[in-house]
Amino acid sequence: MISNCFEPLYGTRGTALISQSSEDGLKDGWRVASSLKMADERRLERLTSMLKRRGIILPAFEIYGGVSGLIDYGPVGAAMLRRVTQNWLDHWMSQGDIVEIDSPTITPEAVLIASGHVGEFSDLMTECKACSSVFRADHLIEDEHPNADSLGAQEIDGLLGSGITCPSCQESAWTAAQPMNLMFQTSIGAMSSGRTAYMRPETAQGMFMLFPSLYRHFRQRLPFGAVQTGHGYRNEISPRQGMIRLREFNMAELEYFIDPQDPPVGDISKHNEIITLIPDPDGPHSGESRMSFGAALEAGIVRHPTVAWFLARTWDFLVGVGIDPARIRFRQHASTEMAHYAADCWDCEIHGEHGWVECVGIANRTCHDLENHETHSKARGLRAWRQFATPRKQVIERLAPNGAVIGPTFRNDAAAVVAALEALTELPDSLPFDLSLEDGRSVTINPDMVERREETANVSGEWFTPHVIEPAFGFDRIIWHILDHAYTEGEKEGEDYNHLSLAAGISSIDCVVLPLFDKGGMPELATEINATINAVPRLRAQLDSSRSIGRRYARADEIGVPWALTVDHTSLEDGSVTVRRRDDQVQVRAFVDEVLEHLRNNSLDSLF
Amino acid sequence: MISNCFEPLYGTRGTALISQSSEDGLKDGWRVASSLKMADERRLERLTSMLKRRGIILPAFEIYGGVSGLIDYGPVGAAMLRRVTQNWLDHWMSQGDIVEIDSPTITPEAVLIASGHVGEFSDLMTECKACSSVFRADHLIEDEHPNADSLGAQEIDGLLGSGITCPSCQESAWTAAQPMNLMFQTSIGAMSSGRTAYMRPETAQGMFMLFPSLYRHFRQRLPFGAVQTGHGYRNEISPRQGMIRLREFNMAELEYFIDPQDPPVGDISKHNEIITLIPDPDGPHSGESRMSFGAALEAGIVRHPTVAWFLARTWDFLVGVGIDPARIRFRQHASTEMAHYAADCWDCEIHGEHGWVECVGIANRTCHDLENHETHSKARGLRAWRQFATPRKQVIERLAPNGAVIGPTFRNDAAAVVAALEALTELPDSLPFDLSLEDGRSVTINPDMVERREETANVSGEWFTPHVIEPAFGFDRIIWHILDHAYTEGEKEGEDYNHLSLAAGISSIDCVVLPLFDKGGMPELATEINATINAVPRLRAQLDSSRSIGRRYARADEIGVPWALTVDHTSLEDGSVTVRRRDDQVQVRAFVDEVLEHLRNNSLDSLF
Repeated sequence: MISNCFEPLYGTRGTALISQSSEDGLKDGWRVASSLKMADERRLERLTSMLKRRGIILPAFEIYGGVSGLIDYGPVGAAMLRRVTQNWLDHWMSQGDIVEIDSPTITPEAVLIASGHVGEFSDLMTECKACSSVFRADHLIEDEHPNADSLGAQEIDGLLGSGITCPSCQESAWTAAQPMNLMFQTSIGAMSSGRTAYMRPETAQGMFMLFPSLYRHFRQRLPFGAVQTGHGYRNEISPRQGMIRLREFNMAELEYFIDPQDPPVGDISKHNEIITLIPDPDGPHSGESRMSFGAALEAGIVRHPTVAWFLARTWDFLVGVGIDPARIRFRQHASTEMAHYAADCWDCEIHGEHGWVECVGIANRTCHDLENHETHSKARGLRAWRQFATPRKQVIERLAPNGAVIGPTFRNDAAAVVAALEALTELPDSLPFDLSLEDGRSVTINPDMVERREETANVSGEWFTPHVIEPAFGFDRIIWHILDHAYTEGEKEGEDYNHLSLAAGISSIDCVVLPLFDKGGMPELATEINATINAVPRLRAQLDSSRSIGRRYARADEIGVPWALTVDHTSLEDGSVTVRRRDDQVQVRAFVDEVLEHLRNNSLDSLF
Repeated sequence: MISNCFEPLYGTRGTALISQSSEDGLKDGWRVASSLKMADERRLERLTSMLKRRGIILPAFEIYGGVSGLIDYGPVGAAMLRRVTQNWLDHWMSQGDIVEIDSPTITPEAVLIASGHVGEFSDLMTECKACSSVFRADHLIEDEHPNADSLGAQEIDGLLGSGITCPSCQESAWTAAQPMNLMFQTSIGAMSSGRTAYMRPETAQGMFMLFPSLYRHFRQRLPFGAVQTGHGYRNEISPRQGMIRLREFNMAELEYFIDPQDPPVGDISKHNEIITLIPDPDGPHSGESRMSFGAALEAGIVRHPTVAWFLARTWDFLVGVGIDPARIRFRQHASTEMAHYAADCWDCEIHGEHGWVECVGIANRTCHDLENHETHSKARGLRAWRQFATPRKQVIERLAPNGAVIGPTFRNDAAAVVAALEALTELPDSLPFDLSLEDGRSVTINPDMVERREETANVSGEWFTPHVIEPAFGFDRIIWHILDHAYTEGEKEGEDYNHLSLAAGISSIDCVVLPLFDKGGMPELATEINATINAVPRLRAQLDSSRSIGRRYARADEIGVPWALTVDHTSLEDGSVTVRRRDDQVQVRAFVDEVLEHLRNNSLDSLF
């Protein structure tokens, strides 16, 4: 099975993370969740219904009956998705050593064999022999086992045989559980020349593929990073939980390439927040703790300084886009569930209507990815050069070319053969062997062509495979929790009055422009103001002139518009408008130029 | 075959557009192209090589041998793609009545049956019987026919049989040409419960699916529009021409919904540019003309006022992102090649190393899309309400329910049946018939349950299917031409000196920061300045301190960075830097705060 480190967001253990209520360390969190749910079990339903009605998140292809696990971001939601994405890009790229790349979502099979996805990215499924319905096997036995998705096929078959009935037809006859690969398969090209390919299960591979280009771009100096945002795909057998488990999702990954002997140490001294951590349950710090990021690194709970830096930066991002800091925690993977090469893996979990949900994974993937691709593709160029502070004397084994044989044998290619011999980093155990030339061809080197020599030389540096620290974000899950945390139900004059307390810059539009009355010149002035604001790149205003002013405020509050500008009689005289703040409904008067400047600088609060 | 209107960018006629040198109106353009090519036939090769070397555009999956038709945007190119995309979004959304949506790329079959893609989105292909190589049939006979891709299978078979040899094995034995659907096929879900789906061939369907949500968002008032950007897919048989013909591409479409009886008329009076137009060759204005957009509309060459407005706005966008205005032309589709419902279709073509290439399509798609989806999905909600200025007396035919029968027959559902009868917009030709209820169920209405009546009533308005004007943009093709037009080859001190004259805001980064020497405090100050600029959202700076200052200027010029800030001895004293302008290499001195403010406002030119 692919390690959790590798599929932090959409991995086969995702559901387990949500259902770990039996673990000691999690009980408190769950008690909160349960009591919230008991208190208002239909809040989820009302929120979902509002999201649909207001064009934020909707089931996709609904006029054709919909497809579970596929959603649309509507006229309000898509703008939020773009703003969260841009915010995320700015957050990382402001660091100066991180660039964006964009690679195809269609991925040839060879890449995903190397990454392990073709062989191991699967869930166990079973089919009802009576009605042919197909289910994810661990879902059927969730009530029988606390960690159903950690079980093997045999254990699952055993539990299924104990009388589990089919949710569709109530019979109890199951085929043996078998793994189903979770990638969407397709074929590139026509007929016999078609090549198997898959829709990417993650964006990370695009960055690994481009390592040679990135290394050149950064002029051969580590550390550096690349980000990619976009769609990822996972052919879920039976998706549930709304936006939490999708078949096509919006993700964003950062691959940060470092020299493991010189790991970058970010300054986390200013991060004084006290964070909830759930360290490795099999390690010396098991149980929930609360401390700063710095203290966690110092105590050895966070095992890698660059990982600590990314945990803190992830926190900054999440709180910045509107996640409630009290509902974030970091859960470290158990040593036993991590792959051998993964030195430190953390999930950032956010609490909401679906309990604690993994929304970000931060993993030290070591040299695993680049090494695997080097092995499978035979590519050079997936390494970095480490310059020694002072040259070192080293005994070097090399194959010295015997010109008298190589020359006549390879003729015009002789120079290329000699160059390839000199470039060998690992010598073959025995001769003859196949030597790859720079241009991709291969030649056979016989024992008479070379002499194995040991030489002492001054070596100025060495090639090594960089390590990778990867923060991977699931935007749909994060946006879900932004909405969940922002959704505030209340009452006003005997009627339901709900609003979204979204952060400015995350709300789909920056302000609504409302003519107090739909006559007397007010609509014209409002139209003009609306156009002026919309003419500023990336500022968005919306004109709303239908129905009462109170109704229009409510409409804007419901989708989280932070500011409402009202054009009234005074506006017609002096050009000023009233500025209403969503969160406390306080109003002040200001001139349009002033408002515009504050909107650009996100400083309208200073007027109050 | 799907009309050109429907697949403006990636349609089956795309290649024809590029090879139409035989048409009278195009000769001039082609002479230009040919003479350019003759003058410097290796420019394309050098440009492509630079794009790869500098991390702008690269073949995707290259370490695994690559896949033709798939490209990567590298560390420099992806930033350009994002900026062009944002520029495009700002361009349209500043209009105030256009919103963004984001829908899945995986699309269930039913949607694409309705859109016509399942049946008709195909190219003819043939296989060599000797070596099994597969080819797009029209490509093989390009030298035999001026419009090979307009031929049917029989004509193609005839030409193939005239001795065309296989490019791979030189034999001449072909299977009969047969259509190959150009969509990437996949399956949603597992095994027997799997549903056929395709990767979307265009983003437009997402907007049509969301029409009910858009209509609600805009409070039932036309006109309004929705945009979507993202990946589109087309399983080319044998992709060629670099970025022009991709299997996965970046596209952006705007669907603008209007009332055909009240089409929006944009103000194009300020558009005085003289544009090259190639009107419908079968119409009264055939032949190339040059005139303003306004004149073209007045002369009836552009047939629809909203289309004229979008032609002009498309021009603004293209010139704004750096397309050479002298290398843009608008080509109207022939009446004979347009589908019956398509009233006016234009391609915006851009000239570059590949000749004239269709980069934008602007089509009046009338009510075709929404009507088709209504027919196939049986959905209500794909119509808009048109309020009459004054109520009209109309004779209305209705089926008046006979309560005495309907009540006892349908019991609890009787009210729903009556409501559905009242809501019928078209009466059945005969009885009995199946009536769909609001909740999706269906009941049979017998003759004794209703009475057919004619009534005169005051009608306040009517439901109709909105028309759609669609500008569809191919970003890869546009970015290719931005690069092509910006790429300037020259010499400096006896060495090649090339630069990209990209528009500010389109270049991947806004400025480089260069310490004159890598010592004496300059690197530290440069690092600080670099960080200050990068901390501003969406501004991007890059530090470069390796090798001579001249070499670093050249490096920045080559990828089109408009500004270079150099930190020198004076900087250490007073904090000022030199600001170098890429295009004329003139330098001025300025303080960092000042530079930052100008960078934010894109006004650095004012210092010169």
